[in-house]
Amino acid sequence: MAVSDASAPPDPLVADLFAALPADRIVTDAAVVDAYQHDEAEWAPYGRAAALVRPRSTAEVAAVVAACARYGRPVVPRGAGTGLSGGANAVDGCVVLSTERMREIVEINADERLAVVQPGVVNNDLRAAVAEHGLWYPPDPASSPWSTIGGNVATNAGGLCCVKYGVTRDYVLALEVVTAAGEVVRLGRRTAKGVAGYDLAGLMVGSEGTLGVITEVTVRLRPLRTSPPRTVVGFFDDLAAAGDAVSRVTARGLHPAAFELIDRFCLQAVNKWKNAGLPDNAAALLLAQTDLPEPGAQQEAEAIHAEFVAAGAREAMLSTDPVEAEALFDARRLAYPALEQLGQAMLTEDVCLPRGRLAEMLRRIEEIGTRHETFIATVAHAGDGNLHPLMLTPHGDEAARKRAQAAFEDIIDAALELGGTVTGEHGVGLLKLAGMRRELGPHVVAMQRAVKAALDPQGILNPGKVVG
Amino acid sequence: MAVSDASAPPDPLVADLFAALPADRIVTDAAVVDAYQHDEAEWAPYGRAAALVRPRSTAEVAAVVAACARYGRPVVPRGAGTGLSGGANAVDGCVVLSTERMREIVEINADERLAVVQPGVVNNDLRAAVAEHGLWYPPDPASSPWSTIGGNVATNAGGLCCVKYGVTRDYVLALEVVTAAGEVVRLGRRTAKGVAGYDLAGLMVGSEGTLGVITEVTVRLRPLRTSPPRTVVGFFDDLAAAGDAVSRVTARGLHPAAFELIDRFCLQAVNKWKNAGLPDNAAALLLAQTDLPEPGAQQEAEAIHAEFVAAGAREAMLSTDPVEAEALFDARRLAYPALEQLGQAMLTEDVCLPRGRLAEMLRRIEEIGTRHETFIATVAHAGDGNLHPLMLTPHGDEAARKRAQAAFEDIIDAALELGGTVTGEHGVGLLKLAGMRRELGPHVVAMQRAVKAALDPQGILNPGKVVG
Repeated sequence: MAVSDASAPPDPLVADLFAALPADRIVTDAAVVDAYQHDEAEWAPYGRAAALVRPRSTAEVAAVVAACARYGRPVVPRGAGTGLSGGANAVDGCVVLSTERMREIVEINADERLAVVQPGVVNNDLRAAVAEHGLWYPPDPASSPWSTIGGNVATNAGGLCCVKYGVTRDYVLALEVVTAAGEVVRLGRRTAKGVAGYDLAGLMVGSEGTLGVITEVTVRLRPLRTSPPRTVVGFFDDLAAAGDAVSRVTARGLHPAAFELIDRFCLQAVNKWKNAGLPDNAAALLLAQTDLPEPGAQQEAEAIHAEFVAAGAREAMLSTDPVEAEALFDARRLAYPALEQLGQAMLTEDVCLPRGRLAEMLRRIEEIGTRHETFIATVAHAGDGNLHPLMLTPHGDEAARKRAQAAFEDIIDAALELGGTVTGEHGVGLLKLAGMRRELGPHVVAMQRAVKAALDPQGILNPGKVVG
Repeated sequence: MAVSDASAPPDPLVADLFAALPADRIVTDAAVVDAYQHDEAEWAPYGRAAALVRPRSTAEVAAVVAACARYGRPVVPRGAGTGLSGGANAVDGCVVLSTERMREIVEINADERLAVVQPGVVNNDLRAAVAEHGLWYPPDPASSPWSTIGGNVATNAGGLCCVKYGVTRDYVLALEVVTAAGEVVRLGRRTAKGVAGYDLAGLMVGSEGTLGVITEVTVRLRPLRTSPPRTVVGFFDDLAAAGDAVSRVTARGLHPAAFELIDRFCLQAVNKWKNAGLPDNAAALLLAQTDLPEPGAQQEAEAIHAEFVAAGAREAMLSTDPVEAEALFDARRLAYPALEQLGQAMLTEDVCLPRGRLAEMLRRIEEIGTRHETFIATVAHAGDGNLHPLMLTPHGDEAARKRAQAAFEDIIDAALELGGTVTGEHGVGLLKLAGMRRELGPHVVAMQRAVKAALDPQGILNPGKVVG
């Protein structure tokens, strides 16, 4: 559908945008705009944007938001659009603000162990740039080759190494933000610590663009890890044993730098796609990686191995070959695209459980899949208790879609019943709105809405997300 | 001055409190109440409370806040009152709510690595209790023998080991909070990760009781450290060289678990008080502690030692004797009480600088002390860039007090000029209100106030603190 409909009256907001910004920043051509109207969430609704803007500077972002504020019109910020919850989905009449042209790495400071970047810098690009200075930016969502730091901050992205090194929130020192009124403010600090006023930078992290538009991010860095990681692999014949292994490793005080679970269906999909030759008749594969300096890594790897055996692993081994270890972690990273190769619609879950409830949750997911006749493959950041059950259905099969969506809600309810949360790292967006309300209850939802109303009284910043 | 003045009309709020709570929870005796009307901040103003309440349960806290809300009267929560910014100071007609009787450790869960405590649990008591389960609660403010977890959360307390292990904020998973309306809500989660809605638990951390009254805290724990720490000591003839040593250690990617600076005046005070025999003719002593498993600790200690030497230390050594090392860290812990022995009023600063500006800031503090004819002794969490210049003046000397207060503000301005923050870990309270406004600017202060108004529309929760 054409965005710039010739028969429609001219949009005064779009006219203001053209007056305020160089023309190449603004797109109203439907064919282009259409691709920017949603993220990768399956079946999340989205509306029709009035325009797409691709500003190059904070001042341009401020001009866009100020124009939207004048007309009380929505602005929907987006990074790379790799989100899985609908957090970047357009609403009718909005301006979609893409940060893709704000890609400058402003500063890398080894003495202070920090970097300052524009929001459109791609996660992997930042990681590569700071590595040249002997530094490391840990948050590593699976989308890191494409997703942007701004989007990572807006969703508080996680990843493989957060089991030991924390999530995006733990690395955000300061933010430059354009407020709902179009003002540019700086939140947070460049110092290691600070408690001057409420933690508004922290509040912005994970707020999905509903409280302000992020125009610059100052991140904390760590020294680059130098010792090669050691990998421990365990194959388990049943999910309960795998869950038990995770609990045992945690309870023993071991601290792997990555601790992943891949179920049989994911292994089979990777084998099918990449001819990977992974043993795919086990119920689950556990992968743990330890990154202590030697001999600590060896000791920790042996301790993890012992717990895998004690939990009843069919087979467990230490990989001393970094190539082999990397291949196994590739299987983890490839699980999602491998399932996509099956050519079906894929709905992604993101519940997070207390680690001790992992086995029970895996059992319930199997039961839910059976009950709703839905194929569910699961990968998990096992050490965090964060599960990604992936529901696959044939495209266009409406009955299958409804069954998958019913399974999705049942998984949420099971997670809540077991003391978990509806979203570990993907965010609320649109898909988890109902689940979040069930999790938080009416008083906390009211507090969330009060905060939203305080910082965005007109409700123009990414309306409908997080607080609904 | 008597709080329960016989000639005054009866206070209906106090009457309501007696109707709602067992009588032993409520104190109106001026002699008792007086001691609860302020924290340990020097020269921070405080008012006259209508009553002190010491509830034993969340329900009792909710009843107190609900009563205050009915009358639109202030409630000022406090833990142990060890704060140094006036954050727990009473305002006229308020109810002071002490959590000292809410001391239950509700749960210690080794499998999930978390503990659930009432807010009045003393920091060291929690640390001791979890240690019996092989677990560790890192945040270790100097007040840890007395200060409470509730107070630590309300101020986002730091300590010695946050240079490696983070501050209180990094350990708070969930909070139970009584809102300004007297409702009990649960914020945050028990899982390792979670992004369901705005991070209101994080917003509460450091908000000094101005957004809600904390009634329960769920903290993340780490495995107890088992290897004995190694200590590196360096004596420096000038502060610039000591500052340079700190920058060098950080830039080299070393990660000590404590990294402290003690200046000559603090060393002299400890020697005088404890006859400690510390070499006190150096300008500064640097203490670094490394806690890696061996041989990592030895390697890291040697690398730190090399940087101390390269920076021009007069003398630098590795301490292999844990008793000796502990004695040196005792000197750090004793600096504050040793200075108190001098029998003077002591105003405590808490600025935090980018690490690379530490030497310049130390130079400016000396210059400010000279200019204002004020004796300033300094201890610092050097690795964090967090300085505690301590201004001492004779009691009752009004001119000296004014000079010290002028020095206090000048130190703030110097820290801001060098890219620092007005408070690293003590909080805004009352003493840093003006400095915080200078740091944040009017737009961010307005955002802070909007958040405060959203969650406390009547302005009854610890009024006058943080946002003024």
